[in-house]
Order: sequence, then structure tokens, then C-alpha cells
Amino acid sequence: MTDHTARLAEFRDRIDSLDGILLHTLGERFRITNQVGHLKAEAGLPAFDPDREAAQRARFHEIAREVGLPSELVEQLMAMIIDQVKLNHEKIRGEL
Amino acid sequence: MTDHTARLAEFRDRIDSLDGILLHTLGERFRITNQVGHLKAEAGLPAFDPDREAAQRARFHEIAREVGLPSELVEQLMAMIIDQVKLNHEKIRGEL
Repeated sequence: MTDHTARLAEFRDRIDSLDGILLHTLGERFRITNQVGHLKAEAGLPAFDPDREAAQRARFHEIAREVGLPSELVEQLMAMIIDQVKLNHEKIRGEL
Repeated sequence: MTDHTARLAEFRDRIDSLDGILLHTLGERFRITNQVGHLKAEAGLPAFDPDREAAQRARFHEIAREVGLPSELVEQLMAMIIDQVKLNHEKIRGEL
């Protein structure tokens, strides 16, 4: 194995490990937002909270700047997560 | 504060904490893929490796099943990451 391929293999191991963290963190995040969905449905709280979403967006962009992530990527990630949360909450409301 | 609003505040704290992990993990992932980009550009290795991408996709879906994430979401996340990696690698090749 050349030095380059050995280094590449090492980088890939680290990427795989980070992907594990990413997906497990996302999984845990949706488990909690599902609990939020149940809580809101039980309590008759509104499904959508524009102040909370604005605070989250500001926080996402603040952390993104700290870690050097492009703001377009962060917007895309946030939209992806919010769409999934809304879908999950709709299912939860349908179940009650 | 009612019991519901206290529980909601607690859930939101946990979500914010997980979002911090998500964004820091993503930031670290791109730092490593940028190192991969530099390595590949220096070593004249091909930018795209279909076997590696197929292995990553399989691994993403395996973890997604374990943690209960929808496969569409995982495909969307993977596409988002790969697009950004390709963009970063193009920039790196341009800098060499």
C-alpha cells in the first residue's frame, strides 16, 4: 500500500465514523421531535411556532459560521429536517 | 409555567444540543473531505470513486434502518453532502 492510499484509507475511516455520529444524532433528534409532536397534540399547542423556527435558524447560521459551513448548505439541511418534522407531526396528529 | 411548556422547553434544549453536534460533525466531516481533496489532487488520484460511493450509500442506509430514519431523507442528506464535497474538491483542484 502506498503512503497516499494508506492516508486515504485513514481519512475514510474517520469520515465513516463521523457519518455514524451524524445519522445517530439525526435519529435521536427525530425521536425527540416526535415526543414534541405528541406533547403538542395532547396539549392542543400549535404545530408551528414561527419564533422558535426563527431562533433555530439564527442559531444554525451562527454555528455554521463558527465551523465554516456554507450558509446555503445549512439552509438546505434545516429545510430537510423541518419538512420531515412536519410530516412526522402530521402523522402523530392523525394517530390521536 | 405549565407542565406542558416546561416539558416543551426541556425537549427544545435537547434538540438545540443535538443540532450543535450535527453541525460540528458536518463541519469536521468537510474538513476531512477537504484533506482528501488535497491528497487526491497531489497524488493524481481520481476525484470520484464509484465503489467508495456505493459502499457509503449502503452504510448510510444500514445505519438509517437501525435508527429509524426514512430512506428518502438519507438519500437527500447524502446527495447534499456529496454535492458540497464535489464543489469543495473542484475548488481545491483549481488552487493547485
